[in-house]
Amino acid sequence: MSTLQVSLIGSGNVAWHLAPELDNIGYFVREVYSRNTKNARKLIGRLYQAELKKDLDFSESTSQIFIVAVSDDAIDEIAREIVVPEASVLVHTSGSKSMEVLGYASTPNIGVFYPLQTFSKDKKVHFQDIPICIEAENRHTRKTLKNMADRISESVYQINSDSRQALHIAAVFACNFTNHLFTIAKDMLDNNHLDFEMLKPLIVETINKSLALGPQQAQTGPARRGDLEVLDKHLKALETHKSYADIYKLITQSILDTYPNE
Amino acid sequence: MSTLQVSLIGSGNVAWHLAPELDNIGYFVREVYSRNTKNARKLIGRLYQAELKKDLDFSESTSQIFIVAVSDDAIDEIAREIVVPEASVLVHTSGSKSMEVLGYASTPNIGVFYPLQTFSKDKKVHFQDIPICIEAENRHTRKTLKNMADRISESVYQINSDSRQALHIAAVFACNFTNHLFTIAKDMLDNNHLDFEMLKPLIVETINKSLALGPQQAQTGPARRGDLEVLDKHLKALETHKSYADIYKLITQSILDTYPNE
Repeated sequence: MSTLQVSLIGSGNVAWHLAPELDNIGYFVREVYSRNTKNARKLIGRLYQAELKKDLDFSESTSQIFIVAVSDDAIDEIAREIVVPEASVLVHTSGSKSMEVLGYASTPNIGVFYPLQTFSKDKKVHFQDIPICIEAENRHTRKTLKNMADRISESVYQINSDSRQALHIAAVFACNFTNHLFTIAKDMLDNNHLDFEMLKPLIVETINKSLALGPQQAQTGPARRGDLEVLDKHLKALETHKSYADIYKLITQSILDTYPNE
Repeated sequence: MSTLQVSLIGSGNVAWHLAPELDNIGYFVREVYSRNTKNARKLIGRLYQAELKKDLDFSESTSQIFIVAVSDDAIDEIAREIVVPEASVLVHTSGSKSMEVLGYASTPNIGVFYPLQTFSKDKKVHFQDIPICIEAENRHTRKTLKNMADRISESVYQINSDSRQALHIAAVFACNFTNHLFTIAKDMLDNNHLDFEMLKPLIVETINKSLALGPQQAQTGPARRGDLEVLDKHLKALETHKSYADIYKLITQSILDTYPNE
């Protein structure tokens, strides 16, 4: 098999890590397009022999794969503007956008190539551990994406747009919301002149336990014990901060409902 | 200083790890009392030379320190029943009970010795990393507890009952509630025949980032971006599960309120 050529649209955190990885695993990243030319040049500096592409007309490109790795709100516009060779494969990397946003593209070979991880430019990524979710409009695209994903990661999943949305919502609960609960906890500690550092060992151990035993098995705390006296005391202490009290009530109720009559 | 003698009341997870640690760092655990005699005997098997105590009358005991390490709902009863020598120090290990529950004890030297961690019997504990929060009714007790805590841990905090309650509520948010969000995420994935394993790398990276950068700095996701289109889509997808939708709405609103006008 000859080396497949890839063009990257975008120079954000996903493109930043994915493009060099593709170079490493036997693809050849030929072109980078980004609204942010400065970032595009920086990314090109990380690549073997890529060129800066200055517009979205790729009709003359020799690439077989086009990867749109831009923020969710930019995908629609890119999808409307981009022109790729008819037989090429065109994918985006978003967890929340459906495959159909690429439906008006100049190729029938559309798909999604979604690495389920949060990326930061300054932090090295170990792709082999990162689940990659792929979706494809047809068999040729599926095969192309599956080959690429299998070379990058040990965890490759074929899931459709509905399932990917469920996955994304689950990730919002497990990651975005979790992080916000830490923010609330830190705020409470700040208000009492206590250091958030104090909580870190407990957080780390809680997460480790949850991932090892499974979260249902690992649930502890006053709501899990049905300790109404402590729950009441906590709500009384939260009286002066309604939004925290509301969150406390709602999640407590959800825990009580999850473990009834015990 | 001669070796201080300690009596343990309780044989649960805290006593299970704390008692052998005390033996190791130069205290001498003399007695173990527990409603659960079988567990008490097992714990004694982990100790240098402790004896089983069969009632709560310690008036003849040679111990200088009495540690009540029982579940929150058992503390009040123990506090009413226990008799200790007049000059001895009596503490409990609870995060949510005030020091005053020991107020009717037969010694004025009461306090709290609260290791801020979740313990499991089958998992080794590294006490030096565990924050220990102490509170004391008087100077002698404070000195006794501070000495003991300093020998066990590198993070010792003197905080009063109000602050300890704030700390406990913060821990409920950051740990108990976080774990429940994982349960919800897992349930959503189960409903879509997706494996919770898929989320684990993202969870681990999210937590690492949050603890390294601080949670406010680390916040990501559609609410943080103010991406109303995605938020609407998610709420639509959650329509069939009201309690999840309610939690989604409330935490999303809290994130929107935390990062306004950006």
